[in-house]
Amino acid sequence: MRVLILGIDGYLGWSLANSLANSDYELFGIDGMFRRKWVKEMHSISAVPIASIKKRIKGYQEAYGKEIKFYKGDITNYAFLGAAIQEIKPDIVVHFAQCPSAPYSMINREKSAWVQQNNLIGTINLIYAVKEYVPNAHIVKLGTMGEYGTPNIDIAEGFFEIEYRGRKDKLPFPRQANSWYHLSKVHDSNNLTFACRNYGTRCTDIMQGVVFGFNLGKEYPGKSLFTRLDFDQAFGTSINRFCCESIINHAMTVYGNGTQIRSFLPLKDSMNCIELVMKNPPAPGEYKVVNQFANVFSINDLAEKISTVCEQLGIKVSVTRLKNPRKEAEVHYYNPDNQNLQNLGYIPSTQFEEEIKKLIQSMMPFKKRIQSYASILDPTIKW
Amino acid sequence: MRVLILGIDGYLGWSLANSLANSDYELFGIDGMFRRKWVKEMHSISAVPIASIKKRIKGYQEAYGKEIKFYKGDITNYAFLGAAIQEIKPDIVVHFAQCPSAPYSMINREKSAWVQQNNLIGTINLIYAVKEYVPNAHIVKLGTMGEYGTPNIDIAEGFFEIEYRGRKDKLPFPRQANSWYHLSKVHDSNNLTFACRNYGTRCTDIMQGVVFGFNLGKEYPGKSLFTRLDFDQAFGTSINRFCCESIINHAMTVYGNGTQIRSFLPLKDSMNCIELVMKNPPAPGEYKVVNQFANVFSINDLAEKISTVCEQLGIKVSVTRLKNPRKEAEVHYYNPDNQNLQNLGYIPSTQFEEEIKKLIQSMMPFKKRIQSYASILDPTIKW
Repeated sequence: MRVLILGIDGYLGWSLANSLANSDYELFGIDGMFRRKWVKEMHSISAVPIASIKKRIKGYQEAYGKEIKFYKGDITNYAFLGAAIQEIKPDIVVHFAQCPSAPYSMINREKSAWVQQNNLIGTINLIYAVKEYVPNAHIVKLGTMGEYGTPNIDIAEGFFEIEYRGRKDKLPFPRQANSWYHLSKVHDSNNLTFACRNYGTRCTDIMQGVVFGFNLGKEYPGKSLFTRLDFDQAFGTSINRFCCESIINHAMTVYGNGTQIRSFLPLKDSMNCIELVMKNPPAPGEYKVVNQFANVFSINDLAEKISTVCEQLGIKVSVTRLKNPRKEAEVHYYNPDNQNLQNLGYIPSTQFEEEIKKLIQSMMPFKKRIQSYASILDPTIKW
Repeated sequence: MRVLILGIDGYLGWSLANSLANSDYELFGIDGMFRRKWVKEMHSISAVPIASIKKRIKGYQEAYGKEIKFYKGDITNYAFLGAAIQEIKPDIVVHFAQCPSAPYSMINREKSAWVQQNNLIGTINLIYAVKEYVPNAHIVKLGTMGEYGTPNIDIAEGFFEIEYRGRKDKLPFPRQANSWYHLSKVHDSNNLTFACRNYGTRCTDIMQGVVFGFNLGKEYPGKSLFTRLDFDQAFGTSINRFCCESIINHAMTVYGNGTQIRSFLPLKDSMNCIELVMKNPPAPGEYKVVNQFANVFSINDLAEKISTVCEQLGIKVSVTRLKNPRKEAEVHYYNPDNQNLQNLGYIPSTQFEEEIKKLIQSMMPFKKRIQSYASILDPTIKW
């Protein structure tokens, strides 16, 4: 089986490459090297020093004795993507090649338009390239739990059966996204639903909670294999940011009153789930949605749990409640399903504090590095 | 009140300019002149000869004694749109400046990507320009009934109150669009919902049925004031196409078994509704949806009604059932609401046959013109 990872140089892309090192899959990667550029734009860096893509690929070969064939390029360029897919003929395409930041998309008009255009056109190109060259390939697409927003009803997985005025149907679960980025993911979900129905494409769309951590569930065999870990306001998601802040004794930057509830999962769970999805392709023409997360916590829960772990490690921590830069419901109902992945064998991690501990310990060697970027920790991007 | 019509050179844009001739509104128009180019790409023309935009504006001034200030340009260019909005300072922006064709968007990858990119970026630019220069302006946005698809439940207007697993919420009505074009309208609906919530934008989003006809409900004061009327496979919607076909004794091209049900309204009803919407702006931050149509018919109903009218006029007609070039449900439930516009005073036209008769009579002088394009009437674009 030939697996193509789009966005292989990113946080999840490079993690997945590591995770698949002992698999029988033949590996191929594409990346336009955007993530490094975006984080630089945020005047930040990865907390973990990362090797160049060339050194990553070389280190991978040396450490695992396995080759990754890498294509550098932008998937919004169809001439490039089409030629690559035609050559690679993947059985599975894991699509991580999108701008994954809500704050980045909210900076100004240029960024809002760019993020939507970039994310949508990349996916449209992928749909067409698969249709043209590998119509039976399984597209594993990364969406986000943020597509659903915070409705006052339980969140089903992609579709729900409802009765309305005495009639029944199974319909797409309503999406209420809250940033231009999250909207781009909603648009992609709608586009992919159509592509499956119309072209017979097979797709699993993963509505993923907020991923955190550096632990793959196995050792990194060398520094050149490290995945990145961001802590800036745009690419550093809450737990990764809070942990990096704690390490340098910067107060954890909670937005608003912290009662916002979201779903989370450790990096190793994300990898585990994606591998399960890869092993269980939907039927031709089927658009399958899985909600991918381990835990549901409020932001205050996170801060409290991270505080407890830090105390155990002898790290002094505090919390600062900043005026919420986002317009979002701070008190709301939140009860999403995640049965579909469990039906494939996923056992959600229950050792949240243990994963936090591992994350903090992994970042301790980079304390000075993080410290020198302390000035970028307060949010300046407003909704 | 200053009214800016985006896409003023199109079928509805130019019709609206005519309809507002006796209003107190100050009129402004923007157009990138795309519609003329697209129809040319389809190797077709408007059944009605239309004047250049320059002659239209001049004729308008002469006939109505009213000026339209026209800006030629592409709204996906923010430098252009922002400057125009800053200068015009409109109270109402009617946004028709999109590619309105499902078949056009299905031609190939380039068109799919272009239609989505064009339609989305134009609307994002408009949202930002309004936010920046006229935050209190009312955006009147044209969506389509096609956004909803054909669910097995009644179609509410934009939002519906549902109970799910014992809890209740009012949520966006699920959209199930069936072409890259219709999807672009769904994406816009989602983007505008967010813009209203986040930036306090006021927007009415019109889910419009299929508009037909040439009759504005008043006389055109001169030929240079005529709106266009298309009959090609991409820009000629069913009724306009069937009527043009009948005039030249070409069989009406019904796709599939003709049991597909859709909503329709005559051009004068569309104008009437849009004026009602303009007079009833939503509150700041409110995203209001109206379903805009007069009748619900199957494609077979249309063919039958047009046949009856043609017989009365002594025109010999026939129907040909082509293999459906679209993947769509041919037998389905369809029961959409349209109470919101009626609450504003809209009385849906009941004289369907009368409007068909007027349309055919208006097109009779252009019989030879239509005839010379008979070769483009059979659909070549497939889903």
